[in-house]
Amino acid sequence: MRQVSIVGIGQVPVQKVYAESLRRLGATAVHQAMSAAGVDRVDALFAGNMLSDELQNQKHIAALIADEAGLFGIEALQVRAATATGAAALRMAYLAVASGEADLAVAVGVEKMSQGAATPALAKALDARQEVAAGATLISKNAELMLRYMAQYGMPEDGLANFAVNAHQNALTNPNALFHKPISADDVRQSRFIVPPIRLLDCSPICDGAAAVLLAPSQAARTFTDMPVHILASSVATDRFRLADRANPLVLEAARLSAQKAFQRANLTAADVSLYEVHDAFSIMACLLLEAVGFAPPGLGWRLAAEGEIGLNGRLPIATMGGLKARGHPIGATALYQTAEIVQQLTGQAGQNQVQNARIGLLQSVGGAAATVLTHVFGI
Amino acid sequence: MRQVSIVGIGQVPVQKVYAESLRRLGATAVHQAMSAAGVDRVDALFAGNMLSDELQNQKHIAALIADEAGLFGIEALQVRAATATGAAALRMAYLAVASGEADLAVAVGVEKMSQGAATPALAKALDARQEVAAGATLISKNAELMLRYMAQYGMPEDGLANFAVNAHQNALTNPNALFHKPISADDVRQSRFIVPPIRLLDCSPICDGAAAVLLAPSQAARTFTDMPVHILASSVATDRFRLADRANPLVLEAARLSAQKAFQRANLTAADVSLYEVHDAFSIMACLLLEAVGFAPPGLGWRLAAEGEIGLNGRLPIATMGGLKARGHPIGATALYQTAEIVQQLTGQAGQNQVQNARIGLLQSVGGAAATVLTHVFGI
Repeated sequence: MRQVSIVGIGQVPVQKVYAESLRRLGATAVHQAMSAAGVDRVDALFAGNMLSDELQNQKHIAALIADEAGLFGIEALQVRAATATGAAALRMAYLAVASGEADLAVAVGVEKMSQGAATPALAKALDARQEVAAGATLISKNAELMLRYMAQYGMPEDGLANFAVNAHQNALTNPNALFHKPISADDVRQSRFIVPPIRLLDCSPICDGAAAVLLAPSQAARTFTDMPVHILASSVATDRFRLADRANPLVLEAARLSAQKAFQRANLTAADVSLYEVHDAFSIMACLLLEAVGFAPPGLGWRLAAEGEIGLNGRLPIATMGGLKARGHPIGATALYQTAEIVQQLTGQAGQNQVQNARIGLLQSVGGAAATVLTHVFGI
Repeated sequence: MRQVSIVGIGQVPVQKVYAESLRRLGATAVHQAMSAAGVDRVDALFAGNMLSDELQNQKHIAALIADEAGLFGIEALQVRAATATGAAALRMAYLAVASGEADLAVAVGVEKMSQGAATPALAKALDARQEVAAGATLISKNAELMLRYMAQYGMPEDGLANFAVNAHQNALTNPNALFHKPISADDVRQSRFIVPPIRLLDCSPICDGAAAVLLAPSQAARTFTDMPVHILASSVATDRFRLADRANPLVLEAARLSAQKAFQRANLTAADVSLYEVHDAFSIMACLLLEAVGFAPPGLGWRLAAEGEIGLNGRLPIATMGGLKARGHPIGATALYQTAEIVQQLTGQAGQNQVQNARIGLLQSVGGAAATVLTHVFGI
């Protein structure tokens, strides 16, 4: 199996609404990643998108983006894992290069959520027959987790507020972020309920965006860039699909398992991680992920945020460029933004968001109510 | 890169309507493939499905099928390429095993087209903005190709009739086929127009089904079965997305390119192929594919059918178990049925449908109006 490295990244700034088409946004991110590596051709393109079936009435988007990007003839496939879709595209590109089937593969994620009704389409990440039919949405499932967490561990209702505060702080200086507005813990406390106890500022926003990363065999990486970032591990695990079927829904088993597999493969532990791009679609999810990976014992994940350990200079910087909460969460693109941001961090290109001595970056991506979690570990 | 073999297959008989849920059909096919190989665990599951977003209001189906199959914790991702989706799942499972990331990977395809409106969802394989908005469907695009073919090569309107006749003949003795009814060329000629010149019997049917294949490294294949079938090549190519943008729409460039790549990888030529599972969603597509692969010169593909060369005892047996036309075309499952059928042929398990001295099987899978084509070559 070949080692695989990232040799180029592309990020279209996240916006509430883009006038450009889905395919154009995707092709733009692809071109950025290719041009960063100085190439005008790739062998394969793997596209991540969750919602275009409903929102753009469009399937077959991998071939469509390849066409729009002028990459006639190449391999192009779409990969999905609900809200973790971007990471699935990254994993498939990784497998293509690792196996030797492709020498240059681009993983691109794109989502245009501004067009049509995103919320009902997002709910299809849950069980249509047994959850959605009973009124569940991704927000209500996260509210269920938060209520249970408060009851089990005695966390106050505003215990998660600093996750959003940190994300907005970090987004301030990320030109690709949707929000450039600092918020306070009081702002979170006073924001309106969406599904109690989850408030507006506990949620990531609906938005448009596209991001891409270009992968090459590590052995050839320096042909394309002076600063390759290596993919030290890529893993996927699933959990029982429905929260109701899990022994303890507060233990995100898919996150724990995929992190374990990834650390083992990379020969690292959680203690080696310089920064963690967490799936903070909802603050409670970020909290539970910190615990699943082993950054905090059960019941104490929220304290990492409350005690300021998650800032750029903290013990474990998370959401260093704004996270899903403030950079934005254009679903299929999200993990590719996060990967690009980890590349910026590990190569010292993160500007005012730079984490000092960043050597190992961790990425986790959550599908649905954590029925699927992908873990990627990056290093220099 | 590791060589990869098929060590188990599963096929749920295709039906017009299944009462069972999508997830149950998928899990059933997975269990069949696993039980054929005598295993109760796999490392990874790759699911192919095109239409569940609309028809079952369900995304995230890979994790859902893994859960239903009792495979808690494993890797599970969904892969797509419009109407070639089943082959995309096969390719991803192939990459997972070839790379060394998985030792046992199952590719499963499932589609339940009986529930809701399949036709508008299928049309999303085309360009929503420039084709569907102008009234195009997959049928109308195939009708366009057939009209052009008749004009360019002087083929009579009923020149393709024997493709359907052959498919129905072969389906008669396949217990997994939807249709068990012989038809004559006259039946085809007299069937009603859908979009002229395409008639009802030139089209594959709307149906439900699920199929799966289990992959292992070739080196370990005999641990699981006495008759492994090797994947000699797996390739994907794209073409300009819209027919209107192609220099010559009658040359299926993605089929030509992906076949060329696959034959090169397998160190074979078209002359080595014992049987060809063709993507006969419409008879004109089968005809054009025969030409793209090189089985017939441009303009003469239809003659292979007309002259009886495509039968079980002909020069090039195609659709040997009934093809998309008569076994049925439950989209995301189709290429997995075809793979399973090729395994039956190459291992001498095809019963009355057995092709004599079958050694090399070719599979092609067409996404949309052939904007994506996957080619797989199998051998013993």
